[in-house]
Amino acid sequence: MPLNGLPAKRRVAPAARRECCLPLCYTADMVTVVAVDLGGTNLRAAYFPDDHPHPKAQTKIPTPTHEGPQAVLHRIIQTIEQVAPADRHDLRIGVGVPGPLDPVEGVVFDAPNVPGWLDIPLKALLQQHFNVPIILGNDANVAALAEWRYGAARGSDDMLYLTISTGIGGGVIANGRLVLGANGLAGELGHMLVNPGGALCGCGQHGHLEAEAAGPAIARKARERIAAGERTSLIDAKGPPAEITAEAVGRAANSGDLLARAVVEEAGEIIGRQLASLVHAFNPEVIVIGGGVSTIGSLLFEPMLLALRAHIMHPAFLKNLRVVPAALGDDAGLIGAMVLARGT
Amino acid sequence: MPLNGLPAKRRVAPAARRECCLPLCYTADMVTVVAVDLGGTNLRAAYFPDDHPHPKAQTKIPTPTHEGPQAVLHRIIQTIEQVAPADRHDLRIGVGVPGPLDPVEGVVFDAPNVPGWLDIPLKALLQQHFNVPIILGNDANVAALAEWRYGAARGSDDMLYLTISTGIGGGVIANGRLVLGANGLAGELGHMLVNPGGALCGCGQHGHLEAEAAGPAIARKARERIAAGERTSLIDAKGPPAEITAEAVGRAANSGDLLARAVVEEAGEIIGRQLASLVHAFNPEVIVIGGGVSTIGSLLFEPMLLALRAHIMHPAFLKNLRVVPAALGDDAGLIGAMVLARGT
Repeated sequence: MPLNGLPAKRRVAPAARRECCLPLCYTADMVTVVAVDLGGTNLRAAYFPDDHPHPKAQTKIPTPTHEGPQAVLHRIIQTIEQVAPADRHDLRIGVGVPGPLDPVEGVVFDAPNVPGWLDIPLKALLQQHFNVPIILGNDANVAALAEWRYGAARGSDDMLYLTISTGIGGGVIANGRLVLGANGLAGELGHMLVNPGGALCGCGQHGHLEAEAAGPAIARKARERIAAGERTSLIDAKGPPAEITAEAVGRAANSGDLLARAVVEEAGEIIGRQLASLVHAFNPEVIVIGGGVSTIGSLLFEPMLLALRAHIMHPAFLKNLRVVPAALGDDAGLIGAMVLARGT
Repeated sequence: MPLNGLPAKRRVAPAARRECCLPLCYTADMVTVVAVDLGGTNLRAAYFPDDHPHPKAQTKIPTPTHEGPQAVLHRIIQTIEQVAPADRHDLRIGVGVPGPLDPVEGVVFDAPNVPGWLDIPLKALLQQHFNVPIILGNDANVAALAEWRYGAARGSDDMLYLTISTGIGGGVIANGRLVLGANGLAGELGHMLVNPGGALCGCGQHGHLEAEAAGPAIARKARERIAAGERTSLIDAKGPPAEITAEAVGRAANSGDLLARAVVEEAGEIIGRQLASLVHAFNPEVIVIGGGVSTIGSLLFEPMLLALRAHIMHPAFLKNLRVVPAALGDDAGLIGAMVLARGT
């Protein structure tokens, strides 16, 4: 199955590349890549001439979300043109998109942070313009690829990636390959039930990990405690409770605010408990935690690790398991789109 | 990483076997296999001379659990000797074990239905006797392999297997390979949290899918309803509530008993809700449901499918998804141990 959108005959497993010397063998190193990271805030593109995470050219502009879906597409094409080499022989374009998509058909179902992007046939539109292979990936899957190949999970065949910010995205590497599933939608680890009948999730369901522990949940729980009369430095610093953000809660927690600490600890505990379930399903060697909320640091990580350990069914699952912060920061999207396009 | 216990250099990805004609290429078809299915009730062994699910010789005896762990090991060796060919050139032995194990080291951590089996170095013990490669697998993982290669999920690269009986075991195929994880423990889908603070699970944790929806949970919930005064045909037919089993509840449900139907429906609903979470993580093409409880049939499957559909975050996950009963019945263990040993 052409999971990453490339014709199956050109994709050969790594073992074959090492052991087979037939001239027809596909060698990933021959390919050059333009990687695009489409975010709700910024749109980045970079040209990677070889299999290293250092681009030869790159550009970054604010994503023109307010100008409508057509303008966003136009800007994507412009940024690619800016960084792409003149010689486009063996060029591929990899694009990380913030939403669910069909990587085979190349259709973006929905990109919540890019208004109007519904059922966009992005692969066909870009292919029409550039006439080179276009490979699309969900942004969290793509970031997982980056952390696996060049970041915090280098060298591991089995890893989970969780990015905790406005939502919770995920990516899974098993047996040394990205798990995309039958329709390329796998890895939605933020949309697993952790609290039946719980808070409304961005996806319309209830009680998902994202609804209970992402940034908006942290902000909401802080506001609820304030409304219930608890004292906090958040009110003095930030005005009325409606304006309190997860970022502000994280800062207050790290400044010693008890309410903020309790809220962050609760989020860590919920995430850690769900990590135990995920460890039972995937038995990873590394769990990489990224996203803005993860930068709160040890106040989030410590309760998370405690809960993970407390909810594991057998200590063998913890043998050699590492839970680490993401290493590539904002570059994960670009680098991952490069890894995706390269097909390695 | 030698995930299935074979030296890495002998394992070549399918693509390489098709495309490479070097004489060093490993061909799975050259191998003959003795498969062993160690169950809490029966111990089976069979000789598979080639890559088909039809054994040339097989044997089945009651597992002598009451005679202690040493007697069980002795009987495993005896059953293998009974079916193994005289010429053991290129023979491998695959063993499915009912409990968590380390497939690389070949140590069985625990086999709850085989008393006294704790940290048994089964691979070394069998290798000492037979001097051929021994490959161990968890029974649910092994059954997943069987259903994938020869049963209800034939032809799919992405499938989930759930066996619902005294416990709930699982197995995952992603990208056309069994997901074993870093220590060979992956696929414990029955030990994911579905009800925080819920019923005590066999593993010592609380609120796992197994604790809320496996056979003992079904029996317990029927007894609780009876104790609360609900009317049911179960009391007349089966005596006092303490003796009510999941099997009896299933039979009563299929005979129209309303209490039994409600209990089965609740189990189906809990399983279906968790399937939605699993579909978000794995995006499988096929979900195979096996185990004794699954034989209750549509009274379990219908609420399960309704809950799965109701809790999916996006209809794209349901595209082409099939949820089907297991096809191989009691033979899944033997056939899966053969597939495991063959390494294909």
